[in-house]
Amino acid sequence: MSTFSPPTITDIENAATRINSIVHKTPIMSSNLINTDAGCEISFKCENLQRAGAFKIRGASNAVMRLTDDQAAKGVATHSSGNHGAALALAASSRKIPAYIVLPENAPKPKIQAVESYGAQSIFCDSTLEAREQAVQQIIDETGAHFVPPYDHFDVISGQGTVALEILDQLAGNKPSVIITPVGGGGLLSGTAIATKSKLPHCEVIGAEPEGADDAFRSFKFGTHITHHAPHTIADGLLTTLGKINFRVVQSHVDDILLVNDQQIIDAMHLIWSRMKLIVEPSAAVPLASVLANKERFAGQHVAIVLSGGNVDLQRLPWQG
Amino acid sequence: MSTFSPPTITDIENAATRINSIVHKTPIMSSNLINTDAGCEISFKCENLQRAGAFKIRGASNAVMRLTDDQAAKGVATHSSGNHGAALALAASSRKIPAYIVLPENAPKPKIQAVESYGAQSIFCDSTLEAREQAVQQIIDETGAHFVPPYDHFDVISGQGTVALEILDQLAGNKPSVIITPVGGGGLLSGTAIATKSKLPHCEVIGAEPEGADDAFRSFKFGTHITHHAPHTIADGLLTTLGKINFRVVQSHVDDILLVNDQQIIDAMHLIWSRMKLIVEPSAAVPLASVLANKERFAGQHVAIVLSGGNVDLQRLPWQG
Repeated sequence: MSTFSPPTITDIENAATRINSIVHKTPIMSSNLINTDAGCEISFKCENLQRAGAFKIRGASNAVMRLTDDQAAKGVATHSSGNHGAALALAASSRKIPAYIVLPENAPKPKIQAVESYGAQSIFCDSTLEAREQAVQQIIDETGAHFVPPYDHFDVISGQGTVALEILDQLAGNKPSVIITPVGGGGLLSGTAIATKSKLPHCEVIGAEPEGADDAFRSFKFGTHITHHAPHTIADGLLTTLGKINFRVVQSHVDDILLVNDQQIIDAMHLIWSRMKLIVEPSAAVPLASVLANKERFAGQHVAIVLSGGNVDLQRLPWQG
Repeated sequence: MSTFSPPTITDIENAATRINSIVHKTPIMSSNLINTDAGCEISFKCENLQRAGAFKIRGASNAVMRLTDDQAAKGVATHSSGNHGAALALAASSRKIPAYIVLPENAPKPKIQAVESYGAQSIFCDSTLEAREQAVQQIIDETGAHFVPPYDHFDVISGQGTVALEILDQLAGNKPSVIITPVGGGGLLSGTAIATKSKLPHCEVIGAEPEGADDAFRSFKFGTHITHHAPHTIADGLLTTLGKINFRVVQSHVDDILLVNDQQIIDAMHLIWSRMKLIVEPSAAVPLASVLANKERFAGQHVAIVLSGGNVDLQRLPWQG
């Protein structure tokens, strides 16, 4: 099977079975006050309450569980300054195999602690993409570890798609008319799109993206995969570039991509914190921001939103001066 | 029925029926990481996700729903700088009756906004207890409104006790051996104690209290109701003095009261935020702090903890310098 073939619904269903004992079935929550404010019904899928604090454990554990015993014995490796690194570390610890996580020297302390708390080995390098890729390659050459990229990968997309299967199952009695996820590299959005369009074809699937990292928006609108960009946004989980497989799935399965600015993201994040008492990271607030910025479009609809993660530096909150 | 008779389990069960359409059935959550750290199994009852952000809506709505139509038409009144004021405002709006909430002039803006967002009338006065009581009395004289005190009241205790009924129902398949609530005025603790000792007599009921507001601890240990104290603690929801009915119930139904200091409260609060991605106010973290400070005592037990509320000033967090 080519790495560039997108997964099918069967792959996502198999992933769900495979990772069932590792991931949490996270709750869906809602807020009357936010519904009133938004003028529609919003169901929040709380992946901020997922293990390691983000949906990323789904893709990472699917990739880890798909390895043969011989492959697995040599461990897994990735480079990540974000949630994928911690997720892969946790997935590897669940299978009791080594994990090597390459981190930029300037990675935030909580991210480093998370990786190390799951027993993974952290390797530091310069923060350039080149330095990180080189460091991972060196680890792979030395250890024979299996590389698990953060989003542009068949098993990762299949794993992330399981969040949509859960949403559709949990909302079976009150089906959504739209599902919105944040989009960075596109693992969550593409997995969600494949699962949703198979199970509930009339449900719209929309990506929400920061204006300051709008490569997926431009790739989608222009029909050309844009890979050069210089992202700058408060949503630190969405700085990545849309992946190759992800772009193909977005083109074929996603209905729209909406942009929001950083102030809208911060306002939506503050609303979720203050009204729902849930800690979400800026990236997770991007879909709600897109609904609040487009109220007429979603008026009266039932919108399912993935709260993608809750890993945030509690010392420095974006609304504090 | 004398105001000084404590409620029975029947009163609490009737309250549960009465308030069923107003309050949320909040989820119970847990954290593997916190369990490992604590050395016991902890089930967190998430009343921070309750309407108006705290368990207080239970007692307030029970008191409001118990009024006759004639009484109700004149409205309800209270003085509160905390969660009870917002809860009574919301309970009154659910019955579409007036609410008059006396607030100290120095009340935090979010608290004032919460009260006003539920359509209640806010009245400002000096922050002394005398000034507040006088202001409420004036409102009552003018409007005929019904006074609903925050904890030392039959209907309020009955309402707060419904949280324990829910816990025991939700944990029917895995019964707790201990239930711990914070204790300030004692509404939650006394309601919980009556419900728990009736439904699951062998389950311990413990109050957790800040060292800087230890009047319930001293009243319990010395067997004398101590009403003079000068509280000082980060747990702003627990500055109140143990009520009269509450003291009687604590004496007869509660197994122990444990003290923790402010640093232990802040550490436990930070642990809940960072590990569970739940926003809780300092008062809500007091029970977890008491478990972590007494690990041998709770080793291997199944401890149910009430996360009493999530109303906190997001601009100023206690772990920030």
